[in-house]
Amino acid sequence: MSRESRHDILFEPIRLGPKTLGNRFWQVPHCNGAGSDRPGMQAAFRGMKAQGGWGAVFTEVCFFTHDSDITPWVGSRLIDSGDIRNLSVMCDSVHEHGALAGVELTHGSSFCLNAESRMPGRAPSQIPNEIEGMASARCMTKKEIRVMQRDHVEGALKAREAGFDLLTIFCGLATLPNYFLYPFHNKRTDEYGGSFENRCRFTVELMEMLREAIDDCAIGMRFPIDTLDEPYGYGDQGVRAAEEGAQFIELMDDMVDYWDINIGTLNWGEDAGSSRFFESNHQAPYAAHAKRVSKKPVVNVGRFTDPDVMVKAINTGQCDIIGAARPSIADPFLPKKIEEGRYEDIRECIGCNVCVSRWEKGGPPIWCTQNPTSGEEYRRGWHPETYVPTTDPNPSILIVGAGPAGLECAMTLGRRGYETVHLVDAAPAVGGHLNWVSTLPGFGAWRRVVDWRKTQIDTRTYVGVQLNTMLSYEDVLASGAERVIFATGSRWDTSGMSAPLHAPIEGVNAESPEVCTPEQYVIDRKPIGGNVLVIDNDAYYMGSAMAQLLAERGHKVTYATYGDTVGPYLRFTLEEQRMYEKLTHLGVDMIAHHFTVAAADGEATLVHMWSGRERTVRYDSIMLVTHRVSECELHDRLQASPDDMRASGIKSIHLIGDAHTPAMIAQSVFSGARLAREFDSDNPDEHKPFIRERRLVDSTEADYRLDAASLRWN
Amino acid sequence: MSRESRHDILFEPIRLGPKTLGNRFWQVPHCNGAGSDRPGMQAAFRGMKAQGGWGAVFTEVCFFTHDSDITPWVGSRLIDSGDIRNLSVMCDSVHEHGALAGVELTHGSSFCLNAESRMPGRAPSQIPNEIEGMASARCMTKKEIRVMQRDHVEGALKAREAGFDLLTIFCGLATLPNYFLYPFHNKRTDEYGGSFENRCRFTVELMEMLREAIDDCAIGMRFPIDTLDEPYGYGDQGVRAAEEGAQFIELMDDMVDYWDINIGTLNWGEDAGSSRFFESNHQAPYAAHAKRVSKKPVVNVGRFTDPDVMVKAINTGQCDIIGAARPSIADPFLPKKIEEGRYEDIRECIGCNVCVSRWEKGGPPIWCTQNPTSGEEYRRGWHPETYVPTTDPNPSILIVGAGPAGLECAMTLGRRGYETVHLVDAAPAVGGHLNWVSTLPGFGAWRRVVDWRKTQIDTRTYVGVQLNTMLSYEDVLASGAERVIFATGSRWDTSGMSAPLHAPIEGVNAESPEVCTPEQYVIDRKPIGGNVLVIDNDAYYMGSAMAQLLAERGHKVTYATYGDTVGPYLRFTLEEQRMYEKLTHLGVDMIAHHFTVAAADGEATLVHMWSGRERTVRYDSIMLVTHRVSECELHDRLQASPDDMRASGIKSIHLIGDAHTPAMIAQSVFSGARLAREFDSDNPDEHKPFIRERRLVDSTEADYRLDAASLRWN
Repeated sequence: MSRESRHDILFEPIRLGPKTLGNRFWQVPHCNGAGSDRPGMQAAFRGMKAQGGWGAVFTEVCFFTHDSDITPWVGSRLIDSGDIRNLSVMCDSVHEHGALAGVELTHGSSFCLNAESRMPGRAPSQIPNEIEGMASARCMTKKEIRVMQRDHVEGALKAREAGFDLLTIFCGLATLPNYFLYPFHNKRTDEYGGSFENRCRFTVELMEMLREAIDDCAIGMRFPIDTLDEPYGYGDQGVRAAEEGAQFIELMDDMVDYWDINIGTLNWGEDAGSSRFFESNHQAPYAAHAKRVSKKPVVNVGRFTDPDVMVKAINTGQCDIIGAARPSIADPFLPKKIEEGRYEDIRECIGCNVCVSRWEKGGPPIWCTQNPTSGEEYRRGWHPETYVPTTDPNPSILIVGAGPAGLECAMTLGRRGYETVHLVDAAPAVGGHLNWVSTLPGFGAWRRVVDWRKTQIDTRTYVGVQLNTMLSYEDVLASGAERVIFATGSRWDTSGMSAPLHAPIEGVNAESPEVCTPEQYVIDRKPIGGNVLVIDNDAYYMGSAMAQLLAERGHKVTYATYGDTVGPYLRFTLEEQRMYEKLTHLGVDMIAHHFTVAAADGEATLVHMWSGRERTVRYDSIMLVTHRVSECELHDRLQASPDDMRASGIKSIHLIGDAHTPAMIAQSVFSGARLAREFDSDNPDEHKPFIRERRLVDSTEADYRLDAASLRWN
Repeated sequence: MSRESRHDILFEPIRLGPKTLGNRFWQVPHCNGAGSDRPGMQAAFRGMKAQGGWGAVFTEVCFFTHDSDITPWVGSRLIDSGDIRNLSVMCDSVHEHGALAGVELTHGSSFCLNAESRMPGRAPSQIPNEIEGMASARCMTKKEIRVMQRDHVEGALKAREAGFDLLTIFCGLATLPNYFLYPFHNKRTDEYGGSFENRCRFTVELMEMLREAIDDCAIGMRFPIDTLDEPYGYGDQGVRAAEEGAQFIELMDDMVDYWDINIGTLNWGEDAGSSRFFESNHQAPYAAHAKRVSKKPVVNVGRFTDPDVMVKAINTGQCDIIGAARPSIADPFLPKKIEEGRYEDIRECIGCNVCVSRWEKGGPPIWCTQNPTSGEEYRRGWHPETYVPTTDPNPSILIVGAGPAGLECAMTLGRRGYETVHLVDAAPAVGGHLNWVSTLPGFGAWRRVVDWRKTQIDTRTYVGVQLNTMLSYEDVLASGAERVIFATGSRWDTSGMSAPLHAPIEGVNAESPEVCTPEQYVIDRKPIGGNVLVIDNDAYYMGSAMAQLLAERGHKVTYATYGDTVGPYLRFTLEEQRMYEKLTHLGVDMIAHHFTVAAADGEATLVHMWSGRERTVRYDSIMLVTHRVSECELHDRLQASPDDMRASGIKSIHLIGDAHTPAMIAQSVFSGARLAREFDSDNPDEHKPFIRERRLVDSTEADYRLDAASLRWN
């Protein structure tokens, strides 16, 4: 295979001040939970992308003072010599593969509660932060502004010492340059506030100081060119692309070597837009203003996974360099695959924002629905493109169920060289529940989880796939398999049993005609009345997805949840606001903080979760979105029948995915990958020990030696 | 001084199986953010309590399997040999002071999302968790139950290896024993579900296995004897003290060496009740049932700070041992002070639950409003009772403002031996804003912050206190002080400027008669109309406190917030539910997720924060709870006038507490303590470097040597 020549432009080097970027692929700054305190994870995660062809690979936000402390969220730090040492391993790892290492220098200003350091903060004006309402900060005097600028320069010098080539001054989310720039944050009446020139003064002076101090690194800015309309952004209290956004770029252009352009505010779901609400390259109309005024190379983001879309963005003058965070997580080898023309191997980001959610909810590691090796490069030694050959390819393996877990498991076993793998499913197609979930409004991109694995199985393994086959207990015994993996999934509960109540809802049962589950409605097409009560006792997307689907089909929908608004976890995938708005727009009546405790004769009784106050809701039908129940009967029966196992020659059985515990798709995929990658260990049902990076007392020095060379996988 | 003889019983040893507890003080398990990954912090924090006289000192929850992973919250772990090594330092540190070291062995079952380990979970029945709705777990088969019991035994063996004397099997919050016990969680139909005996089977078998494996440690259980009425607890789906609670204790009594009794569920604000809603020893009516049926020593908790209340609890047969978490944080030396009769030195917990909130919100270290050294024992080397003498007692120091920051700073400087410290305040009493805040309903205990510091200053320092004195700029210049510390506090904003909008509310200004701030209402007694709109754009307690006060005084109150219910941070102090209920009960109309954007002629316009939909609210008066503004004019003017400083002999100025950045009282106290403890460093406005416990690459072994001996403070 070789690549289409129209994609050649993606591989042209480009000059960035004193540095040269080898191609047009730029892993923009994004969090992964490693920070600078897990140097092995950080170095292996970023080094993997360099190996996969990204010309520039960045850290996440990198803080350089103790009053820029976002605990419990994890960023990296360049505060003391230990931080420099720890991040230098990442730089070495990135350099080893010929890429440039970049750092996103950030001061979080009034967003930072500084809960760990307990230092008070600094800001242009003293107003508590709009998201982190407990955090305020001192309104800096002019003397203190100068100290803050010097702190930035000190941070940049530490970054250079660690080995970074590209120093990005972050002017987005919550940072000093944009807090000075936006009237929303800057209420000053001195020469640092008021006019556009005054609001830029902090940053102009800072860039002059930086240029003075450092001439052997490329220095750039990451800048949201448009802070969007209310209620998504700051309205006339921020900057707009065609006006002050472009003016800012024009003003600073001589002082930077590159621009990394995005959009939005601290409400960053408008930037890292989920695929349910945003198409690829949705920032184009805003971002294009940067090239209009800048003479410097410009990076854009937009969940780019298609090389044709990338080339078009460059050829139409939208940008010079393709930035990516999520697509680089889903496929660290995206550039390499385009370079080599292996287009069908690209593992495209589905835009589910599970990666984002793991950071927002707190705590490492990053999860990715598409790439189960994400965050596991160091601690488990996993490589997304390399499958350690099994030493024993012989056992006959039966995998029951071809949903995300079964597909991933079959594919990985096949890639590892297992010669006899049978993947069996009752449905006419592989994919499990994704076959119907991906037909729901906005979920089309989720289909990629199935498609990529199906292609890999078909083209790169000898796995046998058998569809339309519902295996009975006896079938499994008679299968001749030595090892059986159950990936039999889960079904939506029909009783109303759920997380908040731990009891069925009185009078509600999906066996009856007026109650139905998502599967009954979407797959079985169970009839549903005009006036529907959606009971969302699940915590994720299905409740609101059902409300949306029903409302779009003309039903009058009441949506009741015990959460604060819609699907509590949507807050962490940055989808809560858009979903709430969507349902509002569709006329859905939303009731939060209520349990539905009973229903009869077209009237449901809801009680407030705390006050116990009752209210009633009329309905024709109830859509029951409560919880999912594992389909593990086959497995459990076999586990309880050692004689049957012995007689049939089955040596081991295993349970993965939702059939073990219903969870996010990312977990199902992970569980299939984990079992397959550790299938020849002594007890593959137990995770092999993995490296936990932490302080260890009385350790030997060897525990703490880490260098780029030790991060090679094969 | 010597103690009252009636308190002698608190110092009688008591036998716990193979171990002897030296007195009746028991630091029950509680989190501090250290876990087992910050061994220095953990060891110093717990060792300090042993030094302060606690006879038993426990870890927080301690997990022993990877499927009991509550990331991003921090518990301790005993999974691998590194964990054993790390926690052994805590054991050594506790033993060094003659106390027993205890561990709380915990498996979090379906509460655990296992986000770090990515293992799926295990539970008695498969229902998503009522608090962590994204977490579900596998319904264990009988074979898997046996594995789980063995996992517990393995964990206990690791604890013994680390050096723990007391092994507590945790049966509260989210753990296996109570999940099997409660019908709320246990829906099994086999011999592990149904009858009381069946629901106890898991734990009976587990205790038998533990007893078999270990005979040289004391083994006990921490058990909530009552799971309370709905909506606070499980109602008839849990256990009640007089019934199955006591029955469980009776059944297990022969198998334990002690009982640690509390109440409640995963909704643990009913256990760690804040002082706004619960008196000291509020669990007594429930806890007393344990002694009724048990022959073993019983520990109770109840925010005990008064030795008379402790003695009464023992003498009335309520318990044998005084358990404490929060009081031991606020004063690690509480037992020692009672023992020595130094009653006035006791630093009593105020029950504000800021300690809890730092854990709930995520991330170390623990904060304590009363004890600023909490969590700083190791990383900054601070001791709550020891003040490092200054080497230069001579400079004349003026502290302007005697609120929490100024009081703490003055007291600490005085204790450190500074000979000329003047504390000046404009008010007729020390205490700053706490003088009026502590008069609000429920806030009485907060007064202790002032009282303790006042007593310490009066009895143990030579600090001069001057009241009723409003210092002008000229007064400060003429004061003769060489060093001036501004602790001038903050005032509530009068314009409506606030976190969510960053702009004044149109038509709203507290200069006008129909609008007022909390201070105008409480201190100045500004008249207020019958129908009040409370605009809560603050994130903490003041908005709801004002709504409560006004409603209790007979006003008709509408409470509007952009948060989910009341004061978002109250969720983390475990006060949200009680506050919501209180306001509901008082007839307050609560409007969430709305900004108040304008008001005129008795009508306010509110918009939904996402949908932008408008609604109106009629009012006679508006109570404006928006944000606090620092009072730092004196400091800033002096900072900008180096000539004045020079001429007046002022060599340095410093700004602490709310006058720098309005924050929680805990932060004000900390900022006063920090400055005073580091006042003779080169640049006392910068924090001295502190130890960050983390993995460091290429470190020398010395960085990682840590033993109990190295934790001595003086």
